[in-house]
Amino acid sequence: MSEKPNTASKVIKNDPWFGSYASRAESMRASEIRALFAVANRPEVVSLAGGMPYLERMPFGELSELIAKMMVDKGDVAWQYGSAQGDQHLREDVLQIMELENIKDVQPDDVVIVNGSQSGLDLITRIMCNPGDVVLAEAPNYVGALGVFQSFQVDVVNVLLDKDGLIPEAFEQAIIEQHKLGKQVKFLYTVPNFHNPAGATMSEERRPKILEIAQRYHVLIVEDNPYGLLSFKGKTYPALRSLDAENVVYLSSFSKIIAPGMRVAWMVAPPGIRHKLVLANESAILCPSNMSQMTVTTYLDNFDWKSQINDYRGMYKERCDTMDAALREYLPYCSWHKPEGGFYIWLQIPDGLDSRAMLPRAITAKVAYVAGTAFYNNGQGTDHMRLSFCYPTPERIHEGIRRLSTVIDAERETAELFGTTGRPDPDPTDVEYPDPSAN
Amino acid sequence: MSEKPNTASKVIKNDPWFGSYASRAESMRASEIRALFAVANRPEVVSLAGGMPYLERMPFGELSELIAKMMVDKGDVAWQYGSAQGDQHLREDVLQIMELENIKDVQPDDVVIVNGSQSGLDLITRIMCNPGDVVLAEAPNYVGALGVFQSFQVDVVNVLLDKDGLIPEAFEQAIIEQHKLGKQVKFLYTVPNFHNPAGATMSEERRPKILEIAQRYHVLIVEDNPYGLLSFKGKTYPALRSLDAENVVYLSSFSKIIAPGMRVAWMVAPPGIRHKLVLANESAILCPSNMSQMTVTTYLDNFDWKSQINDYRGMYKERCDTMDAALREYLPYCSWHKPEGGFYIWLQIPDGLDSRAMLPRAITAKVAYVAGTAFYNNGQGTDHMRLSFCYPTPERIHEGIRRLSTVIDAERETAELFGTTGRPDPDPTDVEYPDPSAN
Repeated sequence: MSEKPNTASKVIKNDPWFGSYASRAESMRASEIRALFAVANRPEVVSLAGGMPYLERMPFGELSELIAKMMVDKGDVAWQYGSAQGDQHLREDVLQIMELENIKDVQPDDVVIVNGSQSGLDLITRIMCNPGDVVLAEAPNYVGALGVFQSFQVDVVNVLLDKDGLIPEAFEQAIIEQHKLGKQVKFLYTVPNFHNPAGATMSEERRPKILEIAQRYHVLIVEDNPYGLLSFKGKTYPALRSLDAENVVYLSSFSKIIAPGMRVAWMVAPPGIRHKLVLANESAILCPSNMSQMTVTTYLDNFDWKSQINDYRGMYKERCDTMDAALREYLPYCSWHKPEGGFYIWLQIPDGLDSRAMLPRAITAKVAYVAGTAFYNNGQGTDHMRLSFCYPTPERIHEGIRRLSTVIDAERETAELFGTTGRPDPDPTDVEYPDPSAN
Repeated sequence: MSEKPNTASKVIKNDPWFGSYASRAESMRASEIRALFAVANRPEVVSLAGGMPYLERMPFGELSELIAKMMVDKGDVAWQYGSAQGDQHLREDVLQIMELENIKDVQPDDVVIVNGSQSGLDLITRIMCNPGDVVLAEAPNYVGALGVFQSFQVDVVNVLLDKDGLIPEAFEQAIIEQHKLGKQVKFLYTVPNFHNPAGATMSEERRPKILEIAQRYHVLIVEDNPYGLLSFKGKTYPALRSLDAENVVYLSSFSKIIAPGMRVAWMVAPPGIRHKLVLANESAILCPSNMSQMTVTTYLDNFDWKSQINDYRGMYKERCDTMDAALREYLPYCSWHKPEGGFYIWLQIPDGLDSRAMLPRAITAKVAYVAGTAFYNNGQGTDHMRLSFCYPTPERIHEGIRRLSTVIDAERETAELFGTTGRPDPDPTDVEYPDPSAN
């Protein structure tokens, strides 16, 4: 989500500390998304790449006055150190939000405030996983989770999902196979609602089945739910956590329902795990920012946040509809499932085309997406791309898909003429994207 | 720094996930400070325990208006995702601050913004240290750093310091001993200025010697400098980083010179290490909070922050003088070095007394401190306590030392009569502190 290029995307030559790093540092690599965003965020490019929420409808004017008042009244608290478990008031507030997804048995003491969902994923992996331990995860998978698992040297085993989400039989099969290999499965990582990038949602029929399998094999579930309230039909699904308090660690965030700039998310976990999460949070960041947490409670206490979420739903639905219509118009020979909510369409491109190899050409045509390979840990995904409809306006989305179609059309013609596009697949962390303003 | 008790300080019985945790989670324990703060923060107790800066002199009224304006003008940036390396404007601003400690060769690209110093310590340990690796550190040592090292299963080897800071000969000796044991020393962790808890400052003569040894043995130095600008005499020491750009990772924070509630700190590192720090930052937290960073730049750009720091210096100097005078008045038989800056006096108590065993009695007498044992990884420190003069007013400090003297006087009498105080040393993470309001 980086806004501008930085030196971290370059490989450092002649490092005098080479050989001194921890082994986990060897497996840290820049995500494919990182290098791309430097060019994708230029104004002349229609970026269908980023997962940034559209914030212009936030009531910044009124909010700024309330935050100023909070600072005058409670600046000495907002600017001071806080608790490692998070602000009590905020831990009470999040209970109301979780009730919307049927989670009703939680007390403020069960909640841990974390520095964004990314930190939550870091903490749960940190306390559960030794190097070489197995985590099961949907494939394709959220790129940020893949980064965390990689940095803790976790062995990620892919489990298939379809338009109804994670496939229970595939989940059970994966556990059995790992047990045969003598491996303990530390947890299943799942994004059940409006999956990033696949757009899929776990059906209501599958949820109890997944939980039953988890219970039977004593496998923990980490339920990551940033998009659950952003359903286009207004239908919210019961959280896995609402059906099982003992085997589920629940993770949600304000990033998509309010805004990501405060870096505030929360976790609910069974007591033993929660205890370790608080210790890990203290070790990792000492405490979440009081200023950020009190900004969120100021918003929640003073605004009709349910209406705001409803407004976001309508806005993202319109953008999804626009993208779906544009795809039907310009790329009818590709395939996709229109999602019921969230931010993304997961587009399958014709056989023989390579979404990653094609990306520099798309940038030249002033449109950006994320190649499917970013969402796999094994090189899969060349036949898919993630298209985000969250940030650009409907007009820009339509234009972006039109531009994209010119690129895919041309690639497809080449492939049909020669049986291949002839483009080598570049190293994604080292690719030099063309300057789109040169065209 | 926690404000109220939370469930995380309790041991969880019958955890169904017992046996599933990562080995690093086994070594995570609540710090001694944690359990204490629940009672230490009650208003009837004079707390000489916390390291909270005193914020009432911050210009919250004016600040709140400027932050409100920033939100109206740039709310869509402040509330959005940012760069993993941190905000460019803030990375430019910190150069001015580092110049005050003679660091003049740094570019914004060399800087990484982190989520508080604690996160900086987490990141550098994460990229450098495998389990069992050796880190050298001053003993006593900052409790938050000990927590990080413990959570990454690092073997902390203590190096002596005296009132002139880390002893060069002891540093070299420690390296040689580790090399004899076949161990690689991953880095030296040092707080050269106004050390927490020891109050010591590394003399100007010792600085080049420490660096020469580090260079000769190719040992990295992690220089943690939260207090460097809070010198009571106005004397700032040249940062180790100002004398050596290749072997020093520099870490500083806004927590003590502005306020901790934003959780904003920064690091400067040689290119190879910086590259990995940015990747680790992205994996750990995705990006620092734009809202927090822009709050800091709003402050730096609009206020005379140098005068504010100077004002803080005067305030903390007065409090330090008050504590020193009260100690002379009430506890002349204890020993301490009056620090030249920072937040703490490291008090040595008479032979036979145990600062940790005595603590519940101090709480009953309505005064709190941190026992010396919190700052060692090996049970040392029963003969010391850390007294903070940063947060309470001078009147409260004087009264706190008076109360403390009644406790130490009584313990000393008992010890002189019976040769021992007869108090067993409790498990510090499980101690039940008395309710001070019951007296």
